[in-house]
Amino acid sequence: MEFEVTPWEVKGVVDYDKLIKEFGTTPLTEELLEKTKELTKSELPMYFKRKFFFSHRDYDLVLKDYEEGRGFFLYTGRGPSGPMHIGHIIPFFATKWLQENFGVNLYIQITDDEKFLFKPNLTFDDTKRWAYENILDIIAVGFDPDKTFIFQDSEFTKIYEMAIPIAKKVTYSMAKAVFGFNDQSKIGMIFYPAIQAAPTFFEKKRSLIPAAIDQDPYWRIQRDFAESLGYYKAAALHSKFVPGLMGLGGKMSASKPETAIYLTDDPEEAGRKIWKYALTGGRATAKEQRELGGEPDKCVVFKWLEIFFEPDDKALIERYHACKNGELLCGQCKRYLIEKVQNFLREHQKKREEAKKLVEKFKYTGELAREQWDKAIPEPLRG
Amino acid sequence: MEFEVTPWEVKGVVDYDKLIKEFGTTPLTEELLEKTKELTKSELPMYFKRKFFFSHRDYDLVLKDYEEGRGFFLYTGRGPSGPMHIGHIIPFFATKWLQENFGVNLYIQITDDEKFLFKPNLTFDDTKRWAYENILDIIAVGFDPDKTFIFQDSEFTKIYEMAIPIAKKVTYSMAKAVFGFNDQSKIGMIFYPAIQAAPTFFEKKRSLIPAAIDQDPYWRIQRDFAESLGYYKAAALHSKFVPGLMGLGGKMSASKPETAIYLTDDPEEAGRKIWKYALTGGRATAKEQRELGGEPDKCVVFKWLEIFFEPDDKALIERYHACKNGELLCGQCKRYLIEKVQNFLREHQKKREEAKKLVEKFKYTGELAREQWDKAIPEPLRG
Repeated sequence: MEFEVTPWEVKGVVDYDKLIKEFGTTPLTEELLEKTKELTKSELPMYFKRKFFFSHRDYDLVLKDYEEGRGFFLYTGRGPSGPMHIGHIIPFFATKWLQENFGVNLYIQITDDEKFLFKPNLTFDDTKRWAYENILDIIAVGFDPDKTFIFQDSEFTKIYEMAIPIAKKVTYSMAKAVFGFNDQSKIGMIFYPAIQAAPTFFEKKRSLIPAAIDQDPYWRIQRDFAESLGYYKAAALHSKFVPGLMGLGGKMSASKPETAIYLTDDPEEAGRKIWKYALTGGRATAKEQRELGGEPDKCVVFKWLEIFFEPDDKALIERYHACKNGELLCGQCKRYLIEKVQNFLREHQKKREEAKKLVEKFKYTGELAREQWDKAIPEPLRG
Repeated sequence: MEFEVTPWEVKGVVDYDKLIKEFGTTPLTEELLEKTKELTKSELPMYFKRKFFFSHRDYDLVLKDYEEGRGFFLYTGRGPSGPMHIGHIIPFFATKWLQENFGVNLYIQITDDEKFLFKPNLTFDDTKRWAYENILDIIAVGFDPDKTFIFQDSEFTKIYEMAIPIAKKVTYSMAKAVFGFNDQSKIGMIFYPAIQAAPTFFEKKRSLIPAAIDQDPYWRIQRDFAESLGYYKAAALHSKFVPGLMGLGGKMSASKPETAIYLTDDPEEAGRKIWKYALTGGRATAKEQRELGGEPDKCVVFKWLEIFFEPDDKALIERYHACKNGELLCGQCKRYLIEKVQNFLREHQKKREEAKKLVEKFKYTGELAREQWDKAIPEPLRG
């Protein structure tokens, strides 16, 4: 099966080297990772060491800006069309590492407008409700509340004003080329690329967007006109996809609930799902497995450990070899993963509960939030 | 010369009866005017009596809503691309009469986003600067500061959120049919119809839009989907055009400065412009004029008196006949108009100066303004 990657869908087992060529991005080299280590004076997190982030645009310039004192800022987002799963949250942990270790501002756009516009069956109230739910999950990751501004498009409508100069640069024909619009597309969808690009102009610094590589096309338009408006082209760090339980092809999908572990799943239920659905690289029988060894490179369980659930490098490598050598059976590995996932969910759900008290700070009253809102609220009306 | 009316241009001497047929609107009947008098317990102003407003959509339903206690609200606007002239301000005086005599809320949209998007040579700073200048002229008209909300799209960006459900109803193809977009149109322009329709949903009442008839197509889209979103179709009162100095064809145009009297013109200069450029219905010589009589129906001077500068009906009719009978020479009439215009300008410019102190109230702190801003500013940030 050939693989296919568009911003809407990921199909097949992905050849990431080929994607780099196709999207015209740049491999994330050892040199850049070394530089990252040096500048942050920190150990690299597993997301980088293990090449979960594997490609970039202008990350070299981001590091140069940082080194030379011009700084940069982080921008990421979430389209609130349903509950978040593990595949959604992992990039936020990587983003948290970047914020912590570079000490930079982070803007998180919650695109309740986009999801309402693009999903025929969702009401605006639906996406606003999901926005709140998703924000709890995001806050639970543990960002700095004074250096992070979580803004919901339907609320922080200042974004509209910021999108206007962008929307004067982008023709229908340009937007159509990237998003595939046609005569029946709604005018809200057609305008949306301007809203998505606007946060890259929140500061007069380079923005760095950590996102799965399928999101790359969305930033091409921004990179075409940013400099003509006196801003920087958006830089990006591209991640691979977090696969669903049922196979390494594609990415974890909210529309196939049996392939995903939701952040609000009951830990017991999550365990049952993994036990039942997780595709491993195991052989047909325990006997064969002991003789031939397993195939960790084809195994979702191993992939999940590699991407997120086994931070200990040594333990991960040992597990890889033990599998290959036939010393491990799939059941053992699954049980190990289940425990890791359950611990993570319990911890996350506790923090998610605590997040309810922090929403106001991240959205309105934290240092960065207030700074942004002050630009949005006319002086006579400010609190 | 054939006449032609689109929202972008008015050419030729206009046949208003034909326009009613072309646009599919309804004549403003004596019956509706009688009803207006009865409900407001007021004398009709010259704008109605003299058929400057001559056509409508659903004005009958507006009166019914008012009579039966459901009420209505007024919505109008201004595209701030340059200084305002007399042709721009007259509809605001008519709107003021409606507000005063029906006692209703009025929303005035200042479309600095639109003018920036649609005018290649204007910067966003330009249209924001013109927004301020134009707002002074509008305030000078004398609206009720607690029942009038003047909002600038780039500032009151809550309008974006309100436009989103509209923008999910309107396809590119629908917008193209009304506005004539093509592949090279900017995505901001394509979205704009949703922003323009949004204020008709500010209240769950019928909105009444007093505007020149060439603006009617802009509201067709709104009327197509309003009810499907649980709101009222916009009602409208359509005015004729205020002609420029150089002839009854077309409308006073800001792009032809010699045909217009600007609200900020020095009164002496305005007088000179009228004296030099105003086209009258006069004969070639004073002798001919005395013998044959003048032609007030072809005279810009008379038209300006009729539309705005001679509120005294009796005096207007006497002047009409005196002209027809050859008792008046054009110079006399011009001098009379010049005096009226100069008095108006002096008075307006005084009020315009005083308006500077009222901007804050109309935009932010008046009763209606504050009510609207309260919906736009999250509770923890309110003043």
